[in-house]
Amino acid sequence: MMEYNSDDLIAALATVRGRSAIAVIRTSGFGCVDAIAKIFSRPKVLVNSEGNRVCHGWLLRDDSEKIDEVLLTVFRGPLSYTGEDSVEISCHGGLVISDVIMNLLRSIGFRDAAPGEFSFRAFFNGKMDLTQAEAVREIIEARTDRGRALALSRLGGSVRLLINAVLDGLKKQAVIASLALDYPEDEVERIDFDLDEIRFCRESLERLVGTWRTGRLYQEGIKVTLAGPVNAGKSSLFNLFLREERSIVTEKPGTTRDWVEAWVNHDGIPMLLIDTAGLRTDVTDAVEMEGIRRTRELIASSDLVVALADGAAGHSRLREFEQLGLEVEDGRLIRVWNKVDLAPDAPPGWIGVSAKTGVGFSDLITEISFRAAGATPERNAPVINSARQRTLLLRAIKALDNFRVDMGIPIDLLAEDLHEALDALGELVGAVKRTDVLDLVFSNFCVGK
Amino acid sequence: MMEYNSDDLIAALATVRGRSAIAVIRTSGFGCVDAIAKIFSRPKVLVNSEGNRVCHGWLLRDDSEKIDEVLLTVFRGPLSYTGEDSVEISCHGGLVISDVIMNLLRSIGFRDAAPGEFSFRAFFNGKMDLTQAEAVREIIEARTDRGRALALSRLGGSVRLLINAVLDGLKKQAVIASLALDYPEDEVERIDFDLDEIRFCRESLERLVGTWRTGRLYQEGIKVTLAGPVNAGKSSLFNLFLREERSIVTEKPGTTRDWVEAWVNHDGIPMLLIDTAGLRTDVTDAVEMEGIRRTRELIASSDLVVALADGAAGHSRLREFEQLGLEVEDGRLIRVWNKVDLAPDAPPGWIGVSAKTGVGFSDLITEISFRAAGATPERNAPVINSARQRTLLLRAIKALDNFRVDMGIPIDLLAEDLHEALDALGELVGAVKRTDVLDLVFSNFCVGK
Repeated sequence: MMEYNSDDLIAALATVRGRSAIAVIRTSGFGCVDAIAKIFSRPKVLVNSEGNRVCHGWLLRDDSEKIDEVLLTVFRGPLSYTGEDSVEISCHGGLVISDVIMNLLRSIGFRDAAPGEFSFRAFFNGKMDLTQAEAVREIIEARTDRGRALALSRLGGSVRLLINAVLDGLKKQAVIASLALDYPEDEVERIDFDLDEIRFCRESLERLVGTWRTGRLYQEGIKVTLAGPVNAGKSSLFNLFLREERSIVTEKPGTTRDWVEAWVNHDGIPMLLIDTAGLRTDVTDAVEMEGIRRTRELIASSDLVVALADGAAGHSRLREFEQLGLEVEDGRLIRVWNKVDLAPDAPPGWIGVSAKTGVGFSDLITEISFRAAGATPERNAPVINSARQRTLLLRAIKALDNFRVDMGIPIDLLAEDLHEALDALGELVGAVKRTDVLDLVFSNFCVGK
Repeated sequence: MMEYNSDDLIAALATVRGRSAIAVIRTSGFGCVDAIAKIFSRPKVLVNSEGNRVCHGWLLRDDSEKIDEVLLTVFRGPLSYTGEDSVEISCHGGLVISDVIMNLLRSIGFRDAAPGEFSFRAFFNGKMDLTQAEAVREIIEARTDRGRALALSRLGGSVRLLINAVLDGLKKQAVIASLALDYPEDEVERIDFDLDEIRFCRESLERLVGTWRTGRLYQEGIKVTLAGPVNAGKSSLFNLFLREERSIVTEKPGTTRDWVEAWVNHDGIPMLLIDTAGLRTDVTDAVEMEGIRRTRELIASSDLVVALADGAAGHSRLREFEQLGLEVEDGRLIRVWNKVDLAPDAPPGWIGVSAKTGVGFSDLITEISFRAAGATPERNAPVINSARQRTLLLRAIKALDNFRVDMGIPIDLLAEDLHEALDALGELVGAVKRTDVLDLVFSNFCVGK
């Protein structure tokens, strides 16, 4: 963390390394324009460039050898991402060029940026608060369009604005408490706290903390396991999920494992879908028993379990199904009556689906979304995703719960409750710059951001 | 190829897809600034922007929903890569954002650029000739710093300048031939051709064509196979190559094969180094025989074979070595006398090496470089890498060989020889725009370039 807090010139490849048309190397720091001018074919143009201007030319090694034809974009602080002077080098892509340019930059005094260091400088220079810095990482890591939209709203400051409004309200009360402490002869009950304001602040925080599950859901997704007896049609349903979805994020066929998994995206929710080995009650073979043991482990670690019965075998099979002993609590279990095109109607509490024809699939998706998300948040309401933010919100709420003017609590303790809430919220947006907090926030970034 | 030749608005992700700080989407075409203004939060600023300017703002979907916070760089034709108006979108990296933005661009009339289409437009609009366009791809695909430098020199126009000088010289002679055709009564011998000029042109082309092997060498590298008896120390030497090299390009351990290979880089030459199964004369086991058969195949397909003998076993082993029947012509064979730290001196024609101590390794590298490259080209001399360019140079040289004023050849045939040479060189730099040539050149590009 120590290295963040410095005036070094920093540089990093900000795009993915590989065969591509172009690559971008980011640099930042006081004097970085002058430094790069030393290795540029048109130094005067660069040094005299205003911000947000692009200069075309060549990077040079040893004053003469051309390294690459590049576009340099100059940013002048504070109108830059980091708030400092900054130069972005747009060079040819590929495996060699960016390495050669990074070496060149090191030779003139730049050091490699640590992960998240550009965003840290942006935060440090007051360009964004911590909720926005966290949103930058969440946008990059988003797996669906909905996850992107929620993170983008945080980057736009939706969480920051709400917290700042709460901070303003609570600060006023803290001032009132301070004044009361200067005149200790007054009765606590007679101190003129705005209790409506405090109640409103508490409710706002409560509502925000309630969005945490949604935020995580859209950002990180859920694990959905398909389970059931052999021949219930799990693989057919798995393939239907892949076929019907809008975009496959990744697919990792389980060549060396007993299950197959794929990331799919339905209703904007990323789902890690797992097709397991079929369960059966009459297994004696050791290999098959091991497969079933692993299936049970997957079921135990899943957010939702879609249990399939072979509807075509008739209602008599339900008993066999129960004997499989899935041991999943009802909140996580979705019962699917497969092959409904050939079968009698689904029993109560079961969703009739035909993995073959697609009948009933949208009902299944609706049920999964409902179980996963509960009510969908309003489009523009702030939603949090960070566990750090949730912990601090809960700390602030707890402090406000302790703030009770009707219990004869001494004024100095009440003032302390308010300050505890203010501290927690200040840490949330980064008003309190604690090294360990910053390390937590920025160390998960990718380099170049 | 047809689709290249159009006025469409085109767009493509120009960086590698993946988790990164930023990604860049390139767009080009007449009206592309106005088109993108429709989905930008600050349309007027964008539309009125001069070239080489960066605009900060948000991309919007359905006029209001924020898609991402972006930097748009405006380029005004002809001062752009393609020669047309162009906008580069610098957005957040990751798997989702660039997909969402590409969809947005498609919705307002952009189509996905074909591979190489940006460079094709640059060529079509006279921003570069074909040798420079090919150099763009070669820079991206360079595996070592030296390969990059040679390609960059082509991008700078080193080949184009040489060819243009030759074209100028030959055009003058073609004009003289045309004039002579108008006055057929003159004797051919008395026509005032500048024979020194023609000889100079031919020599320039000859010298350039001779660099082809070097160009390919530095760009594509060579395959070097280590072979020899069991226990001669092949694996130790293989590891020494990996340890001593300046940077490992890739390493692909042969988990499912009988050999191990790795790209290494010595003296700027990329080498695919292959460690094979040991050869022996007394094999009866079927699996081992198969391994030896494959080793022989690798040897047959290699540019160079480094054959190791276990020097510690003494000179008596040389006979056994010869019995292995490597069947490699001397030009491709490098004999290494390994374990020279424990062994008697290397016999004549052998390089003494100790894979254990590193003694003699630099001699081996020098020998490999010498065999591979012959004399190293001068630092700034133009070097060709493209097989297309080589074929056309050879065609031009052949035509000039046919041009003999002292053989009583009729003037119309001599004129045809000159035009054949001019055609070949014109096609080389792209003065002759044949669709099949262009397809050949641009279809191997990556998208976004």
